[in-house]
Parts: sequence; C-alpha cells; structure tokens
Amino acid sequence: MDRASLVQNIRSKKSFLCIGLDSDIKKIPSFLLKEKDPILKFNQEIIEATKDICVAYKPNIAFYESLGSSGWKTLEDTMTLIPDDIFTIADAKRGDIGNTSAMYARAFFDHMNFDSVTVAPYMGIDSVSPFLEFENKWVILLALTSNKGSKDFQFMEEGGQTLYQRVIKQSQKWGTPENLMYVIGATHPSKLKEIRALAPEHFFLVPGVGAQGGDVNSVTINGANDDIGLLINSSRGIIYASDGKDFAEAARASALKLVNEMGAFILL
Amino acid sequence: MDRASLVQNIRSKKSFLCIGLDSDIKKIPSFLLKEKDPILKFNQEIIEATKDICVAYKPNIAFYESLGSSGWKTLEDTMTLIPDDIFTIADAKRGDIGNTSAMYARAFFDHMNFDSVTVAPYMGIDSVSPFLEFENKWVILLALTSNKGSKDFQFMEEGGQTLYQRVIKQSQKWGTPENLMYVIGATHPSKLKEIRALAPEHFFLVPGVGAQGGDVNSVTINGANDDIGLLINSSRGIIYASDGKDFAEAARASALKLVNEMGAFILL
Repeated sequence: MDRASLVQNIRSKKSFLCIGLDSDIKKIPSFLLKEKDPILKFNQEIIEATKDICVAYKPNIAFYESLGSSGWKTLEDTMTLIPDDIFTIADAKRGDIGNTSAMYARAFFDHMNFDSVTVAPYMGIDSVSPFLEFENKWVILLALTSNKGSKDFQFMEEGGQTLYQRVIKQSQKWGTPENLMYVIGATHPSKLKEIRALAPEHFFLVPGVGAQGGDVNSVTINGANDDIGLLINSSRGIIYASDGKDFAEAARASALKLVNEMGAFILL
Repeated sequence: MDRASLVQNIRSKKSFLCIGLDSDIKKIPSFLLKEKDPILKFNQEIIEATKDICVAYKPNIAFYESLGSSGWKTLEDTMTLIPDDIFTIADAKRGDIGNTSAMYARAFFDHMNFDSVTVAPYMGIDSVSPFLEFENKWVILLALTSNKGSKDFQFMEEGGQTLYQRVIKQSQKWGTPENLMYVIGATHPSKLKEIRALAPEHFFLVPGVGAQGGDVNSVTINGANDDIGLLINSSRGIIYASDGKDFAEAARASALKLVNEMGAFILL
C-alpha cells in the first residue's frame, strides 16, 4: 500500500487505529477450542467485527511462531481474511546481515503479502535496506519502544544525541516517508513532540495504548502531523475485552472507544 | 545443554566449529530438487557428513521462514536429525516486549527444543530476560556484529563506553556464563581481546569466518579463554563448498580445514 492510500483510508474512516492480533491459544474464549483452528476462527471474528473501523491489523508473529509450523499456517490463513484496503503489519522485529534480512523480506512481503514489517536497528544499514527494496512495502523501524527496557540502551547519548534520535536521523538516509515508519511507544508522550520534529513526514506506529498505559489524546496532540501520520495500536485491550460468546462485539466496542477519541483529530 | 557438557564436547572433538545451516532452495545442488523436501535432504546429508567434527549447528531461521509454514516444518524436521549431544542455535535475532519475547522463547526452546537463540539487545532487559528463565537454555546476545552496518550504532560512545561494550556489561547483570553468550563478529579481530577482558568467562559465537573474511587463528588467539569459550561459525564456506553430487563430502573437507586449525588450540 502506498502512503497516499493509507492517508485516504484514515480520512475516510476517521480512524488511525491499528488492531494487534496477539492471538494466544491460552487467552481466547474457551468455547473456540472446539474449532479446527481456534486461533484462525478467533481472528476471523475479530476482523469481521472491526474491519470497518480500523485502518491496520498487526499480527504479532511470536504468538503464531510459538505454535511452530501449524502456527505459521494460521498466520498465512489469517492474512487471506484481511481486506486488501487495510494496511498489514508483520510485527516481527527482524534484522540480520544483508543476505539474511533479504530472506526475511521475502517471507513477509513475497510469501505472505504483508504491507510492512517491524525491524530492529541494532545491526545498521545492511540489516534494514533489503526490506526497503520492495515497491509499496514498508519498514517500521524500532526507535523508542514502549517497554521498561527501552531505558537500557535507547537513551545512550553521544554529542547531545540519543541512540533513538540517531536511529531516526541516520535511517532517513536509507528510506523515505513513502517506505519507512518508526515505532514510538505511547508510554513516552513527552518525547513524541521532539521526535515529530526530527521526522516531520514519517508515519509513527505507536504501541502501548491500553494495557501498557498510554492514551490516544496525549499521543495525538504531541505526535500528529498534517496527514495524522500515526497508527495507534491496541492489542490486548481490544481482542481480549471479553472472554465470552460476545468477544467480537466487545472487541468492537473497545475499538470504537479509541476511534471516537481519534475522530476529533481528523480534519476533512 | 549445560556449559560443562559444551566444554567437554569441544575438548573431546578438538573442535569448536559451529556449522550454519543457511540452506537456500536456490543454492542447494539441483539434483536434490527431485526430493520431496529438498532442503531437509540437503540438511540431512550435511549433518551426516559433519556431525563427528563440529560441536554446534546453527539453522538460520530466515531461510526457513522465507518458505512460510512449509519452511517451518522443514526446520522442525531438521531439528530431529541433529544428535542430542550437539549444541543447537536458532539464529533468529529475536527480541520484543516481555510477553512477546516469552512467546519466542516458547517457540524455540519448548516447541523445537533448541539449546539457544540469538537475541537482539535494542529493547533492553525485558526483551532478553524471558529467554533466560529456561533451565539449560541459552541467550546469545548480539554485541558486535560482523556486518558493515555494525558501524552505524554499535560504536556509539558515552562516557568512554561504546554501545556494544554497554550491552556486554549491562547484560552480565541479567545472565551468567552458564546461560548467556555474545555474538562477536570475526571481522573485528582487534576488538576480540578487549571484549574478552570485559567478559572473561562467557562463550562468544563468532560468525564471519569464510565468506565474510575472518579467520580462525586471529579469532582464537585474541578471543579464547581457558575453556576455549568460542564457537566459530561458518555457513556458506562449508555447506556450499560444492554444488555437485559430492556436496556433503566437500562440506566435510571444508569443515575439516577449519577444525585442523582449531586443533592446535585445544589443550587436554
């Protein structure tokens, strides 16, 4: 998907919500366990209930990988259920030497037709570039993450510039606002304004709303640009809103709460 | 596998060779393509031809993942072919927020019974710790990698300490020489001595010998400790030594060249 289409979808749906499909066999409603592929059925119901109000889905690859080859089959099948006009994110945090990153790019872009993949920056340019060679596909590079451990290395500072700032500056030589986004955690709202100044046009994928404590208003006030330029993700707060028969309706209701907060920020 | 068993294997085989199974459907001998699972057959022949002279195998997960669920099945089947007394490394470069890293740990340690997994440090403590909670399983943490992009961020410096040095110092609070190793590229031999001083007892996984330009002698002279403390990896230089019917014998011959260089360093 190209940037213009993504921005158009945000405007028409008045939503910049990304729903994280962190689908865990131990957490989905127990009545689904009688299904042939319980996680696929769970994802199908969640997608059906929310596809008109979100602009992106983000399967968390670890949750599928934990089930081995059968989990990967569920992931492949899930991808066929997502409408083409919804942006898809393989939340995989991959990154390796060039020939290996090229293989990961093949896995997610060619084999499974994801629009984007999250990539870890530690190994530098040749670990990221192979993902940028695919037309209308995106790298979403880790910059400032939402977790406690973000403080261990990401705030390291040289010459007045932190590591996450250096990642953002340096990587703008590798990709453009048309194929490169950044992961910026919602748990650092005070940093969002500063990071927006470093990357005025790039989209940010913002996890950490909901279970991790961030909120839509402070993220959007500090992080939006003229095209919104944000995909705010919620996973557990939406997909596990209920563990009963009404799980899909409850997911929709939780998603709508966030979308209603977003609506105020969308100017036509 | 525990540390004592790994050291014992190195002493008895007079080898600290790790063979990287970067098995690519586009590079394996073409006569194998008639097999039901060509990559599995390729891996089986390579393992049969080399299992008495190496102490570790390192499947490069990207190469299997690029084929989707069927590639993951090949990986699962490959794991059943590796003898129990050989150390196994899932070269996966994973790392995410705590609940997600726990899922990756489940994938590689529980589901596939790998001894170890390579982990990227960017997201800090809670991205690494879930892997350290499994008994006799190992994290192999990226510190100073072998590729060109290692210069982008890993040499960033604060208070006289580089990022890779900080990763090594900080992570020694999270794990021990019994469950934590580091990836140190063979392409930085001058740094190996310095890094050995920072982590005297930890094992280092050293990629970059062969196709990437490093060599066994300089790595071992600079990086070994009293237990050797090194796993030197070669992938392409061994498994693609020939693309003919003799590929497995050629792989063994290439592996033996490295093992012969290693022999001189093993004291009984």
